[in-house]
This record gives sequence, C-alpha cells and structure tokens, in this order.
Amino acid sequence: MLIALLPGDGIGPEVVEQAVRVLNVVTDKLTYETAPVGGAAYKAQGHPLPAATLDLAKRADAILFGAVGDPDCDKLERHLRPEQAILGLRKELALFANLRPAKLFPELADASALRPEVATQIDMVIVRELNGDVYFGEKGMRTTAAGLREGYDIMSYDEGEVRRIARVGFETAQARNGKLCSVDKANVLETSQLWRDVVIEMSADFPDVELSHMYVDNCAMQLVRNPGQFDVIVTGNLFGDILSDQASMCAGSIGMLPSASLDDKQKGLYEPIHGSAPDIAGHGKANPLATILSAAMMLRYSLGLPDEADRIEAAVAKALAGGARSPDLGGTMTTAQMGDAVLAVL
Amino acid sequence: MLIALLPGDGIGPEVVEQAVRVLNVVTDKLTYETAPVGGAAYKAQGHPLPAATLDLAKRADAILFGAVGDPDCDKLERHLRPEQAILGLRKELALFANLRPAKLFPELADASALRPEVATQIDMVIVRELNGDVYFGEKGMRTTAAGLREGYDIMSYDEGEVRRIARVGFETAQARNGKLCSVDKANVLETSQLWRDVVIEMSADFPDVELSHMYVDNCAMQLVRNPGQFDVIVTGNLFGDILSDQASMCAGSIGMLPSASLDDKQKGLYEPIHGSAPDIAGHGKANPLATILSAAMMLRYSLGLPDEADRIEAAVAKALAGGARSPDLGGTMTTAQMGDAVLAVL
Ligand SMILES: CC(C)[C@H](C(=O)O)[C@@H](O)C(=O)O
Ligand SMILES: CC(C)[C@H](C(=O)O)[C@@H](O)C(=O)O
Repeated sequence: MLIALLPGDGIGPEVVEQAVRVLNVVTDKLTYETAPVGGAAYKAQGHPLPAATLDLAKRADAILFGAVGDPDCDKLERHLRPEQAILGLRKELALFANLRPAKLFPELADASALRPEVATQIDMVIVRELNGDVYFGEKGMRTTAAGLREGYDIMSYDEGEVRRIARVGFETAQARNGKLCSVDKANVLETSQLWRDVVIEMSADFPDVELSHMYVDNCAMQLVRNPGQFDVIVTGNLFGDILSDQASMCAGSIGMLPSASLDDKQKGLYEPIHGSAPDIAGHGKANPLATILSAAMMLRYSLGLPDEADRIEAAVAKALAGGARSPDLGGTMTTAQMGDAVLAVL
Repeated sequence: MLIALLPGDGIGPEVVEQAVRVLNVVTDKLTYETAPVGGAAYKAQGHPLPAATLDLAKRADAILFGAVGDPDCDKLERHLRPEQAILGLRKELALFANLRPAKLFPELADASALRPEVATQIDMVIVRELNGDVYFGEKGMRTTAAGLREGYDIMSYDEGEVRRIARVGFETAQARNGKLCSVDKANVLETSQLWRDVVIEMSADFPDVELSHMYVDNCAMQLVRNPGQFDVIVTGNLFGDILSDQASMCAGSIGMLPSASLDDKQKGLYEPIHGSAPDIAGHGKANPLATILSAAMMLRYSLGLPDEADRIEAAVAKALAGGARSPDLGGTMTTAQMGDAVLAVL
C-alpha cells in the first residue's frame, strides 16, 4: 500500500521521520513516496500545494502529514501561504471528518496544567467538520461606503454538510459511551441554528445516543472545569479548531495528540494536531509521539491493520512508562531519542 | 447619579439584589430604576428589550445588568429571544469595548481546575470588541442551488472598528504591564488579516507597548498551558466570547468574574460574565460576587468613585479569606449569605 509522506515545514520533517521508522518495524506492507508541501513547497516550486503533491495524495492509500506554517511566508498573498496546502488537501480530497481523540496517558498526569484528578478523567473524541464553515466561504477585502478598508468572510453550512458530519459524531458515540455533545453558538449565529436543527432531526435515527447541545463559550469553560463529562463532541470547522487545541493541552501536551481527517470511504490524512513550531525546528526538540500515534490511526482507519496500530500505541505507552520525556513533557530527550525509545520497546 | 438596574432572567435578579445591598453601604449618591429585560421582558411585555427599558438605559449614568437567557424562549424567532436584549443594548449604546479582567483571588487557588502554581499566575484583562464581527453582520437562512437549507452569517471588521478597540487594548496595556497580545485567525480569515494589519499600523503610536500576535487556537491552548504569560489580550467579538469564558474558569469560577462594556465616553454596562443559569435559578445557589465586583467596576469606570470601588473589592477578598464559599466555590452558602459576608466586612 502506498503512503504519501508530506513532511512540510518546521518540525514536520523531524517528526515524520520518526513515525516512518516505527511504521517500518511493525509492517513491511507499505511503500512510501515523499513530496514537498507548505512553505517548503512554495520555496522549492512556487506553490504550497504543487500539482504533483496533490496527485500523489490522490493516488496514495493514505497520507502521513507533518505540519505547515512558515513565518517567512506571512507576507505572501493568501493563496500562496503554507496553510493553503492543508486546507487545499482537505477540500480536494473531501476529507470532511476530522477525528481528534484527547486522552491523557496516565503516565503523563504530571504534564497537564490541570490538576491530576481533573486531567486523568479526560477521554474524549472531538469530531470536527473540515470542509465548510467560515474557512471556505467567500472572503476578501473591500471598501466601505465611508471609504474604509474592510475584511470579510462568509460563514455557512447547508443541511447536507451538517448531516454527514453529524452522522460521524453519532456513530463515533455509538462505538464509545453513547454520549454526543453538539457544540454551536445558536443563540447568535444562523449557521449554528441550522446546525442545531439538523442535529436534532438526525437524533431520531440514533435513539441509543444521548444527545446534548452546548454553546461554544460554555464548552471552552467546561473543557477546563470538568473535561471528564465529555465522550464525543461534534462541532464545526472554526469551533473545532479552537476547542481541540484547548482539549489537547488539558490532556497533557499538544505534542502527544494525533488526528485523522477522513473522506466518506475511510481514506485519510493523518497528522499531529500541533503545528510547525518554527521556533524549535531543527533542534531535535520536537516530540514525535503525536505523529507516531497518527501513524497508528492510519494503520487502523485506512489500512486495515488494527493489530499493528495496537502495537504502536502500546509501545508509546510503555516508552512513556519507561521515562521517555521530550522537553514539552518536562524532559530532555531529543526527537530521535524519543523515536528510539518507542523502537526499543517494539 | 441614576443607575439602571436590569436584572433579567434566571439568577440575574438574585445576584443584582446582593450587589445593590453592597452599593447602598458604600455610597448614598446613587438612585435606582429597575426595568425588565430578556425573557422576563418578553413574557411581560412581548419584547426582550422594550422601548422603556432601552430608554432607561440611555438616560442612566450606568447600567447594572444581571443575565439573560431562558430555555422557554429557545423556539422564538431570533429577534424575540432574550439574547437580543444584551446584543441590542451593546449596539444601541455603542458599548464597543468589553473589559474582562481575569485574576485569581489567592484565597481561591483551590477552586481552579488548574494546578495552583499555574492558576495563581493568572492576572490579565481580556479586551473584547462588542459591536461588530459575525455577531452583527447580515445573517439568515437561504436555500442552496441543490435545494438544501443553508444558514449563513457574515463576519467582518472595518479599520475604524479595529482601531477603536485596539486603542483600548494598547491603553489598557500601558496602564498595566505594557504587554498586548492580539488574537486572531489571520492564517485563514480575511477579517483577521485586516485586524492584524491595523493593529500593527497602530503599534507605531505605542512604542512602550510590547505587541505580539497569536492565533486563536494557539491562544486557547496557551490559556491552559501557561496563562501567566498574558497581560492584556485584545480580540474580536466571537473569539473574545470564547476565550474570556475559558480564562474565567482558569481563574477559579465563572461565578467570580465581572465585566464592563464601555462606550467612548466611559458610559458603561456592568455585568457578571456568567449567564442566567436557569438550572439553579431561584434556589439561592448563585454566587453574587461577580455582580458585586461588576458594581465595583461601575463605581470606578463610569461614576468616578474609585475609593468606594476599592472598598468593595477589599471586602470581597476579606469575605473569601474569612471562608465565604458558595456552591461553585465548593461551599454551601446561599446567595444572600454571600452578600451578608461582604456586608459584614464593610
Ligand atoms: C494551519 C491551520 C490552517 C489549521 C486550521 O486552522 O485548520 C490548523 O490550525 C489545524 O487545526 O489543523
Ligand atoms: C448571551 C450571549 C449573546 C453573550 C455573547 O455571546 O456575547 C454572552 O455569551 C456573553 O459573553 O456576554
């Protein structure tokens, strides 16, 4: 099976390298092709998502992605910025369902800023919509009647978009503890009102799922106050972006959390939820575990290799139990040493 | 000086009552007029913001507001819902600058879900824009070409709107520790790009303020990881809504945090940042301290009575030190008993 490796910018290449080392130990069924993406692709080829990179992503059975984002590119026109690469991949491949599990490895109870008794209760999946919302609506700069510069972005969802992501939310809850919390801002936004109406309509088909609704401001508060209350959260692209980063930090370090972005046939792009961290790139300080765990999700969701996925996840837990700690976890191990620690267990 | 009392829904009346008791002890310069607002006003008079209520708010020197929100009204058309009252007041009175200080009372270090060593470092002001953004753009339901229901909301800011709130941010930072963090999502949104451009332009006028920029997803994470890094945050209406609720919980309980919403002449509306909490309304379980502290902000910012404001704040700290704890703080005291505890110190 062909894996597209898109390491990207900043710490992306360092963490993807370790994930590939780990994958190679648990299976020999994979072949790899690498292509540039993000700022790296812009610098080499003039575009953050070159046609050959997109083509590889389409041909591959799954995509392992590092990170994009490069301060050198902040002044470029929007369509040339690194972020457009990941947004473009999500849209072109119709990867509409982003699954972000947030769970504290018990070994890391001390790494969370939350009290251990609060942090250890965290075990949730955030299901974030990835193909719509204010991310992909019409946007631009215009001049007001008074002659002022104005920026604008249109937020919207139609019922078809809500239905397909809500279904993922309900099904994810069915496979877990049967609790789904839909997060919106229906007291202010019409987009959210439609979202809420459609989720309520669909709940009739999932009588075994206990559905609740929460405003996004309250959810941001509850994720600190009592994150153990959540099983599955389903929300839109923008709120999901904010809440999943927040939840990751409640669960220890953002350097630990993987994600899957899936289309409707379980083809997927797998990436750590952290960014390119240009400040530490090239110093061997990045924690590769989020990417290694993303590779495990890839084996399970897109490649039909659940046992191999289990082996990787168990090895990560064991490496942590054995004391493996990168700087974000309060330790001093390098990126490669963290990879070594996982390999040593395997 | 005339104070408009708008107690509103749920726990609003209970907490406003305690704040008035406290105000009456520290000053005899105030007179009060009360008017219905929110769901209570809709039920009594058919509109969440009746003309007489708006008129009172305009006539008054300052407004003390409880909370709005009532599940009975969720099915009403949007313009009749309780939330429209607070949105209407903010807009009609041009209350564009929302100041939300978040600071942990040292006595409450144990009430935060964050580790005490993280929580005790929190001392920031979030400056949230209140008159623009996706809150007030065109919004509605429409039908797509494919015949699907679609909800939409237009997000926008013009440079004038950004400038006046950014100025409040810079000046607030000047009066504190000189650090301003502007939060946006400029890697995706044009509204944010304009926001960032304008804030950067203005920074030339404030060479004594150290300006930084942060994406909203990262900020949600940093507010958990290391909230002590922030002095003043300035951000738009939607992001400010989410981040300030989150920050409040990091700083202990949302039942503790006050807010001021100001126009450009320091006229203001003062309200606790918590909502109407219909689940506990009428049971005497609400913590009135956020409203009492909002009353103190009112004395300081709009009424020129800073000594009286100091007295209230000192009394709250002393009451907490003396063990006053409502249920949200892990205690059993009623709303009135919390008021009594503050009065006893005064
Ligand atoms: C890089 C950026 C465009 C992206 C997003 O906002 O979706 C990132 O924050 C993420 O969460 O994957
Ligand atoms: C009640 C609601 C409309 C309001 C808002 O979103 O602004 C509230 O959450 C707040 O923060 O004051």
